[in-house]
Parts: sequence; structure tokens; C-alpha cells
Amino acid sequence: MTDDTTDADGDALDPDEVVERHENQLDDLLAEVDEPTPAEDDSTTLELAGLELSRRDFVKAGAATGAMAGLAGCSGNIGGGSNNTTSSPSGSSTPDHKVAPGEHDEYYGFWSGGQSGEIRVIGIPSMRELMRVPVFNTEAGRGYGYDDQTTEMLEEAGDLTWGDNHHPVLSETDGDYDGEYLWVNDKANGRIARVNLKYFETDAITNVPNTQAIHGCSVQSPDTGYVFGNGEFRTPLPNDGRDLDNPDEYVSLFSAIDPETMETEWQVKVDGNLDIVDTDKDGRWAISSAYNDEGGVTVSEMTRDDRDFVKAFDVPAIEEAVEAGEYEEVNGVPVVDGTQDSSLNQGDSPIVRYIPTPKSPHCVEVGPNGDYAFVAGKLSPTVTIIDIDALDSSSDPEDVVAGRPKVGLGPLHTTFDGNGHAYTSLFIDSQAVKWDIEAAVEAEQGSTDPVIEKQDVHYNPGHIQAVEAMTTDPDGEWLVSLNKLSKDRFLPVGPIHPDNDQLIHIGQGEKEMELVADHPAYPEPHDCVFAHRDKLDPATTWDKSDYEGEKEFVTQENSRVERTGERSVDVKTSSMRSEYGLKDFTVKEGDEVTLTVTNIEGVRDVIHGVAIPDHDVHLSIAPQDTREATFTADEPGVYWIYCTYFCSALHLEMRSRMLVEPRDD
Amino acid sequence: MTDDTTDADGDALDPDEVVERHENQLDDLLAEVDEPTPAEDDSTTLELAGLELSRRDFVKAGAATGAMAGLAGCSGNIGGGSNNTTSSPSGSSTPDHKVAPGEHDEYYGFWSGGQSGEIRVIGIPSMRELMRVPVFNTEAGRGYGYDDQTTEMLEEAGDLTWGDNHHPVLSETDGDYDGEYLWVNDKANGRIARVNLKYFETDAITNVPNTQAIHGCSVQSPDTGYVFGNGEFRTPLPNDGRDLDNPDEYVSLFSAIDPETMETEWQVKVDGNLDIVDTDKDGRWAISSAYNDEGGVTVSEMTRDDRDFVKAFDVPAIEEAVEAGEYEEVNGVPVVDGTQDSSLNQGDSPIVRYIPTPKSPHCVEVGPNGDYAFVAGKLSPTVTIIDIDALDSSSDPEDVVAGRPKVGLGPLHTTFDGNGHAYTSLFIDSQAVKWDIEAAVEAEQGSTDPVIEKQDVHYNPGHIQAVEAMTTDPDGEWLVSLNKLSKDRFLPVGPIHPDNDQLIHIGQGEKEMELVADHPAYPEPHDCVFAHRDKLDPATTWDKSDYEGEKEFVTQENSRVERTGERSVDVKTSSMRSEYGLKDFTVKEGDEVTLTVTNIEGVRDVIHGVAIPDHDVHLSIAPQDTREATFTADEPGVYWIYCTYFCSALHLEMRSRMLVEPRDD
Repeated sequence: MTDDTTDADGDALDPDEVVERHENQLDDLLAEVDEPTPAEDDSTTLELAGLELSRRDFVKAGAATGAMAGLAGCSGNIGGGSNNTTSSPSGSSTPDHKVAPGEHDEYYGFWSGGQSGEIRVIGIPSMRELMRVPVFNTEAGRGYGYDDQTTEMLEEAGDLTWGDNHHPVLSETDGDYDGEYLWVNDKANGRIARVNLKYFETDAITNVPNTQAIHGCSVQSPDTGYVFGNGEFRTPLPNDGRDLDNPDEYVSLFSAIDPETMETEWQVKVDGNLDIVDTDKDGRWAISSAYNDEGGVTVSEMTRDDRDFVKAFDVPAIEEAVEAGEYEEVNGVPVVDGTQDSSLNQGDSPIVRYIPTPKSPHCVEVGPNGDYAFVAGKLSPTVTIIDIDALDSSSDPEDVVAGRPKVGLGPLHTTFDGNGHAYTSLFIDSQAVKWDIEAAVEAEQGSTDPVIEKQDVHYNPGHIQAVEAMTTDPDGEWLVSLNKLSKDRFLPVGPIHPDNDQLIHIGQGEKEMELVADHPAYPEPHDCVFAHRDKLDPATTWDKSDYEGEKEFVTQENSRVERTGERSVDVKTSSMRSEYGLKDFTVKEGDEVTLTVTNIEGVRDVIHGVAIPDHDVHLSIAPQDTREATFTADEPGVYWIYCTYFCSALHLEMRSRMLVEPRDD
Repeated sequence: MTDDTTDADGDALDPDEVVERHENQLDDLLAEVDEPTPAEDDSTTLELAGLELSRRDFVKAGAATGAMAGLAGCSGNIGGGSNNTTSSPSGSSTPDHKVAPGEHDEYYGFWSGGQSGEIRVIGIPSMRELMRVPVFNTEAGRGYGYDDQTTEMLEEAGDLTWGDNHHPVLSETDGDYDGEYLWVNDKANGRIARVNLKYFETDAITNVPNTQAIHGCSVQSPDTGYVFGNGEFRTPLPNDGRDLDNPDEYVSLFSAIDPETMETEWQVKVDGNLDIVDTDKDGRWAISSAYNDEGGVTVSEMTRDDRDFVKAFDVPAIEEAVEAGEYEEVNGVPVVDGTQDSSLNQGDSPIVRYIPTPKSPHCVEVGPNGDYAFVAGKLSPTVTIIDIDALDSSSDPEDVVAGRPKVGLGPLHTTFDGNGHAYTSLFIDSQAVKWDIEAAVEAEQGSTDPVIEKQDVHYNPGHIQAVEAMTTDPDGEWLVSLNKLSKDRFLPVGPIHPDNDQLIHIGQGEKEMELVADHPAYPEPHDCVFAHRDKLDPATTWDKSDYEGEKEFVTQENSRVERTGERSVDVKTSSMRSEYGLKDFTVKEGDEVTLTVTNIEGVRDVIHGVAIPDHDVHLSIAPQDTREATFTADEPGVYWIYCTYFCSALHLEMRSRMLVEPRDD
């Protein structure tokens, strides 16, 4: 791609040439839209804003004056002259993102794994995957969903084996990451999970009542007051078969979860579909983007009007309403009415402020100093800047909009450095755009161009994140663009392609963006969050006091077999290099066996596994940890239990025999 | 670590100083053995070769003259003067393993995922994970174990949700990789799976009869005649409750699987526990390492004797025996008696040759030109070189041993460059040792030192693989050491540590080894195999003729709902950007719903997902592919089916509504 508005010599193009460039770019993009649609060449369309546009019409609309509602300003780039589109790094100052053997990365990156259901821990700047943390999925490598404890947790949270996690968020103390916990949503099943960062292990999953799709997920600053979850899909309340095809009765819910108990404290029903949520820095406002304020159920119904409304939740005001009993209890949760017509929203102190934006925006992010929330336009080439202080003082919803810079086609997400810059991902343009926040605010709306620079990415970015961008003091050294398509960027690996997370060096925001590395990602990360390594202090072995009273610490000496009933047996054994406490044990066909295994080692990284052939059992036991698995020994025979983690030179010989005797009775 | 036998100036140490160095190294190592053993300081032991040695005794034994059976030659390094232990790369010629944004890796690396049950595709030299291919595990990201087809395949293969895969092997034509298939074993459950490399997807899993643990796995050269699987654990035959605690009746089996039908053609029962297998280059011999020829069931029983026996299977001779009916049929498979006392093994043409090695060796690998098989000593510091041609001509089993070089402590695996060098991983020494094959063969046994160079790795390597080392023409540019422990090499991520796969540059074998990169690996890769990128030609979209007749290609026009019974419904719909063919559909509570979805796009990387909230269903559908999921609609309500792969600017709006009506009857 070339600069939008200048020729090769940097001279301004005349408007027709700009239109032609845009047309060519969009032709490239739309060429792919054509191919898949079988035998429909004549009616090839691009659906945007619910309108079916032919390719030519779309390009023209984009280049026109912005009369079209949903596309008001596809000409975003055309007026500006300061765009500096860099398509290749300037060689001289390219930083090396490699981390030398044995040296450590500077940042922890926590990636949501999307439909894989897991969290991935990735080191920055090396982009190496340091660990996977299974969350909503089952995963044998760590025995997650195989030992009794995690199996029960997953069963109680809906008995599901996957989830679609999007937004990882970190616990805070005094507005900074405290390294204690991470939460992440499950969009597929309306859940929120918590990962304990002492052990890098999921320790709680909440199935949030009354809501089908938790999409946005955020932590209330500055001290993790609540974990907020945005219910995206509108459904009947409760969703028990009533009002099946009566969308007017559907609602979406904003939920507040207690971070300790993981109980849902209260919910607020609103108009439209809630999308992403972020909070201010002092615990007052939670601000959600939303679409489909029409309450439609098809794309065309959802995009009938010319605007949607951001919802700004006044948390203390909602707490007061709950306290005053102004709610309906549904499935045990107080549900407060926050719809636009609700009595609680009339007057000068509404519990939810409705702020108009161009149609179907996508993300909202609050900037580092807490002054502004940034709402990316998606179908509009703009970012709506909301003045957070004005939420309290202003009575006209339009007055809270501090600016609406045009940034490019398909803006989805925004991130920040520590020097007053915002970086917005452009899904349609396949670019990251760097722009100046104050310039956008100070300028008369639409009359200036705060855009500093654009960087091509490959291809179609969703989230964009800079290191520690969600804190009050972003480091601004590295930025990652999470691109949804990789196409030809990697060796081909069949029809299911990896995504492409690209590492971009931004040098505290003081230099040009430089694309440093492509990084393939298993489908499909949505978002990530980065914490400096000094902010975490994980354990390297288990602290057995963390499970004392719940599970026995089984030593070599007290390894034993105990029959607990006619058809039930407890087997307890230690494990160490290179032997289990029990060399063998005998049970009867049909016995329910509860196997408890303690890793009595004290040295980091000496893990033992427990595989039981043909019984679908695998335990993964870190030093000082104890795990249990309950299974039925349903077929007579000899079964060699063995260690799956290579632990010593005699690892291969580390085994125990389970003898299952035929039951004659 | 320092050179074993010279001081800082390169002068030879006197024997006492050498002993002291070894002692210090082992002290470091054994310090960790001490810690985990609770309150047993006085009896701290290292079990090797079944003998319990105190730390001091072990060190002394290692430094002694080799009188001890299992440790014959812990002094391996002491005699030599040519060891060049490199602990850091020589800066000047360090190659950059980074692959620039948009450029491709040169090699496909296929990693077994161990207890994670998956195959990982990793690019060399960048070490980036390009894709995961679920094999024995279920994995929602790709809908594997969620769509009907893969769910049925997993159910028929034992209804298990995980496996422990160790050895990925590639299909061959004319002795070279043809890019068609990959096979991998499941040690936990005695299975072998096949991955189709057109689609990078598992397409068959065989539950091998009569065997509990398939460990070694190999392809018969030069044209993928069979896929061989080594049954490691000895069990009764059949394992149906007979001979439960009668180990004399236990057997382990070598299995030959047809690569097309994936049927088990025949099996050979042998003495001992089979470990790893490799084949010669012309279809005659399959050579397996083995341990526990004693037939013991505890470590001390397994290491009672002073040697074990490699088993060399004469494949044509076994086929003749099967043809002649000289077998017992067990669970439908011909089982030939290949034990040492079998009548088929007497005389000059045994079907299995038993070749003595030092006690409890580990791996066997056949070198590039097919002359030799290399058996790493594990407890012995040697590699036993077997002359493959001599297998046919020699009547004395000892005569087939062409050399037994001393390489270091804990040799486990060997790999090759194209210049006559072998590289052996040393588990205990935590090193990769490069040595000269012909020097080892030509020299009188034990009297010379073919070792060229040693490279520290971090820590405790298992497999070691150079690029295309398993072909007849290794490229020898890069080598990967798969280290079992990472300890302090990465940012801490809790008690479950990643492994550490280290990339080492070997420059076609003509230069010193250079450690280039540490790469964390999710637990726990065992082995990998590398193919040059020119040897694969994966599809970028599906070819619908591959499933014609089995599944319908559902277009937008014929999207529909069909009631097929009182409680069963077929729902068929297309998917494309940004809509499903059906905007909604209605079923009744309790209906079994079969949902068929076709992705009608034709463009690479435009994937659509299908998530059904609360029903544990996820489909992942590449362009031109069709997937089905069958589930029960057991709760009345509105369920928003949505697309999980970000596919267009209106991806978020890509949905369909499933209305589940209450059933009154």
C-alpha cells in the first residue's frame, strides 16, 4: 500500500487520484469477496451498515462526502496530508527482538486463545509461547479436566469442554498490576474464569446467570472492585422458553462479579447488544460499547438506524439502586433496569448514560490517565473520544464527546504509549494508525488530522496492544497487532490458517513504528495484556498448605490401598525419581478407584505424570503437589501406570502395575 | 561445565583431577536428587543399572576402569584429548535464525506433543509454531472431537480424549519424504494415528490389538511398506484377566500396520520391553532397542542382568512365517513367536536377531546411508554401532557390533549430518556430543576417541534431531536438542515448566556447534522430524470431492430444516461472510439435531466457525469444507449460534438463532 494522499514524491494527489487509489485498494480487498460467492458475480455486494452496496458504489461512497450514515467518512484519509505510511522498517534503527539463550523476556504477555478456550503466556519481545493455561477447555498435558478437582470445577460450571475466551484482564492494586489473578470471559457460554498467577492455573469458573454471551470483560480500577462482564446476545429473561420469537422482550445484561467469591452481585439490563467494556481509573464508571440499539435480530434490522449508544454505567449509582431494592430478582441475581426508558435513567443522575456514536462501533478503551474513553467506529472511519469527567457534569449526551478523529477504514481497537499517542487498528485498511490524542481533542471536530503515521499489517487486525497500555503508566516500547488473517505469510499448513500476531517496535512512542516480527497464532487469539516481569512472582513448586485438609500429602511410607466399599477403593501413592510409592496394587473389575498421588520432590521442574492406559486418565503433578483421579476399573487385566514427564535417566522404568481381577459375583 | 580432560590451558589433567571434575559435575546434578527425598540424607542413592550406589561410589565407579556392568565406561571422556566443550557460541559466525516478516521458514518441523496428544508444526529455523494438529486429544479450536466425523473416529479408537504421542514419522517414496502422511504413536493407549498432510488433519486412528503401549514408531523404507509400532509394556496375551500376576507369561509385541488401511497385519512377540524402532533403507530390517530382557516387573528385577538385546526383525522372513501359517491368532491378528527360544529363531535364519548391548539402552537410529544402526547406551556411556549388512551374514550376534564409542554420560538419541558425523544427546551430562562415525568404526573398540566436540544444553536432553537426518541425504544445517527441563531459562510461569527445545547451528557439520536459541515447549515433546518445505504441498482450501457422497455441500439456496423423526431434525445451512444460510430455525425441546454447515467461500484463510452456546458444540469450517455436529436441544430457549473466526467487518453480526420450543407432551 502507498500513502493515501501523496504520490511517490510526496506531492499531494488531486482528489480523483486519491479516489482511484482507494478504489484499487478496495478492489484488491473485494476481489476476495467475489470469489467465494458462487455464481453471483452480477450481484456481488459488500454488506456494511445493513446496506447492500455494489463494489463500485462502495468505493464511491467511501470517497464521497460522507452523506451515507454507516459510512460517514470513508474519506477519512483523503483530507489529511500528514499520513506517513511505512510499509517496511527503516533498517538503521530496527531493534532485535530476539532474547539470547538463557536470558529472560521483559514482559509477560497473556493471550486469550479464543475458541481454543485457553490462555497463552507469551514472552515479549521474543514472542515465544512460555506456557499454556487451559481455562474452559480440557487439556491432558496439564491433566486439566482429568484430575478430580478440575473436572468437578468444569462440571459445575456447565459441564462443558470448551469456551471462547476473548479478554484477559489482570488484577490491580492501587491502579497497577499486582500479579495475583487474571480473569477472562467465555463468550460461547456466558462465563468468566479466574486464573491464579501464583500457580498459573485456573481456580474458578462462574457461569453467569441470565446471560448467554459474556463478551467484554474488565476489572474495576484501582483495586479490582468488581470484574465486569458484558452480555452480548439479547435473550428472553429468563431464557426458559418464553418469548422465543419476541425480540422486543429480549435483553442484554451488564454483570458485576465479586473477584474473590466469583458470585454475580448484580446485573443491569440495557438496550442494544453490549460489546466491549473498560473502566475509568477511580471506580466510578464502566463504559461499554454497544450495537443494535434497534433490538433487531438480523443484520439488516440491527443496522436500520444511523447510530448506536455507548453505555456508561455509574457503578455507585447502581449499587445504590440495588441497596434500595430497585430491582427484579431473576435466578437469584438482582437485575436493575438500565434501559433508556427506565425511571432510573431519567433526570440528571441516570444509572446508565447513553452516548450516541456512529452506527455499530466496536471497542472501547480508556486511556492511561483516565481522561478519555476511545470508541472505535468499525463501520465509521472514526474514533469517538468520550470525556469521562463530562459524564458526571454534562446533561446533553453529545457534550461528552471530546473529539471524533478520522483514522482510516475499519477502526476496531485502540492502545496507548506513555507519550500521548493512541494506536488504532484498522481492519479494512490492514493498518495500525498512530495519532495524537490531544491534537484530536483540541481540534474542531473533523477539521484537522491528528494522524501521525500508519503501519501496514498482515492482514486485517483485530485487537492491538502496547506493553502495559492498560495501566496508568504505559511503557510504550512494544506493540502487538493481532491480525485475523495470515494468508501467505507462513509456510502453508492446510486450510486452517494461523492468525498472525505482529510485533511492532514503537520506542516509547518517540520513533516511527517498525514491524519487527510475524508470529503465527493458533486460532484464534482476540486480545492480550502485558505486564512487566517485575509485577509477577509465581511459585516454582507447590505450597502444600494451599490444599491442606482437602487432599492428603502422601509420602512413600504411607502409600497404601484402602477398600472403602463393596465397589470402591482408595489408592494413595507418592511419586519421586524414579518410582511410585506403590509398585503395584490390585482392585476388582467394576471398582470405582480414587487414585491420589503426591509428588514428594522439592526441586523445581521435576514434574511427574500419571498415565493409566485405556482409562482416559492423566495426572500432571508438580513438586509438592497432590492430585486425585477417580475412574472405574471396568475391564480385567494388567495396566501399567507410568510417568509421562521425563524425570530421570530411569524415567522409562518408573511404573506401577494395576491388576484388575475379574469379578465372579 | 569445562572440558573433561584438560585444564584451562588445554593441558591434560592428571586422572585425579579428572575424577574431581566429574565429581563436581555430578555433585551439582545429584544435589537435586537429594533434596526431594525426604529425610533420607544418609541413604541418598542414584539408581543406575539396578544397583544402588551412593553418590561417592557412583562418581568413583564412573572414574574407574569400567569393571561395573551397567556403568562400563563412565570414564568415557577421560581418555580422549579431542573433546572441545563449547559452552557459548563463538560470536563471529553465529547465524541469525530469525525469519524476516513475510518470509518463510525453510523446513517443516513436526513435533510430537507427548501427553498433550497433539502434533505441532514448527518452522525451522525460526522455531515459530505454525499450527497444531490435534491427534489423540480433543481440541475446540479446530472443532476436533466436536464435529461428528472426528468424534466418531475418536470413539471407535477407544473413546479416549488424550494420548501420549512420541514419534512422528513421515511417509516415503523412493526413500525420500513424499509429503503425503505423518504417523505417530500413542504410548498411553497402544494406538497409532495418521495425519493427512494435504489438510494437516488426523484422518485415522488404529487401536492396535493385544498391546498396551506403542512406544517406538517407524516407517518401512523406501516406500512406506508398513508402519511399525513397538509394544513397550509386557502384558498377558490376551490381557483379559488371565495371568494377572504371572509376569513370566507377559509379552511385548512388535506390530506391522498397513499404512493405507491402518489395519494391523501381524505381530511378533519377543522377550524384553521394546523401546524405539528404526528401519534400514531397503525394506529388510526393522531394528528395535529393548530393555528388561529379564522379564522383571520392578526396576531392580528389570536391571538384574548385565545386558539387554536389540531385536532386529527380518521383515520378509516374518512375512513368510505368516504366509506359512506359523502363528497364533489373537484378537484377529496373527501373532508370530519371535522370543529367543522360539523355533523360528533357531538356525542361521532367525526371524528376529538378538544382539547384546550394555544394560538398558535407549534409542536406536539408522544412519543416512543405511550401513549402521546406532543404539544409545543410556546407563552405559557408549553408543553401540550395529553393522546392518552383517545382520544377514553373521552367525555370532557379537560380530554385528561394528563399534562402541564412549561418548559421555546418559546417551539417549543420535542424529546425523550429511558429512559422516553423529550427534548424540547426553541426558546426564546435559550435552550434545558430535562424533565421527567412521573413526568410531575403524578404531579398535574402546581404544580411541572419535568425539569431536561437545555442546552444553539446558538441561537434560532427550531426542536430538538434525534437519532431514532421517533421510538418505541429511541437510545438516540445523539441529534441535529437545531438553526435558528448562529450570531457570525462561520467565517463571508456575510449577509446571515448559521444556526447552534448543536450536543449534551445525553448518552442514563443517563447523563448531553453536547454540542459537532457546525455545520453550508445552509439555512434553518427545521427538520431531524435519522435512524441507519443497517436499510438502498442502491444500489451502478443501476439495469437496474428498467428501462427496458422505456429506452434502450445502449452498445458500438449499439451506433448510428437515424433520426426520418425532425427536430428530436435520438442519442444513451455508456460511459465508457475514451470514449463515439460515437466519433462524426452530426445533423442539429434546430433539436430536444434526447441524450440517458448509463454508461456501473459495478464498484461502476465510474460515467460519459455528458456536452453539451451552451445547458444547464448536465447528471449524475451512473454505469449501462441510462439517456436521449432532446434539440434543435439551433446554427450551433462544440460542444464538455465532461465527468464531473473525471473518469480516460484520463478523460480530454473523449469527443464527436456534429457537427451542418447550415440548408439551
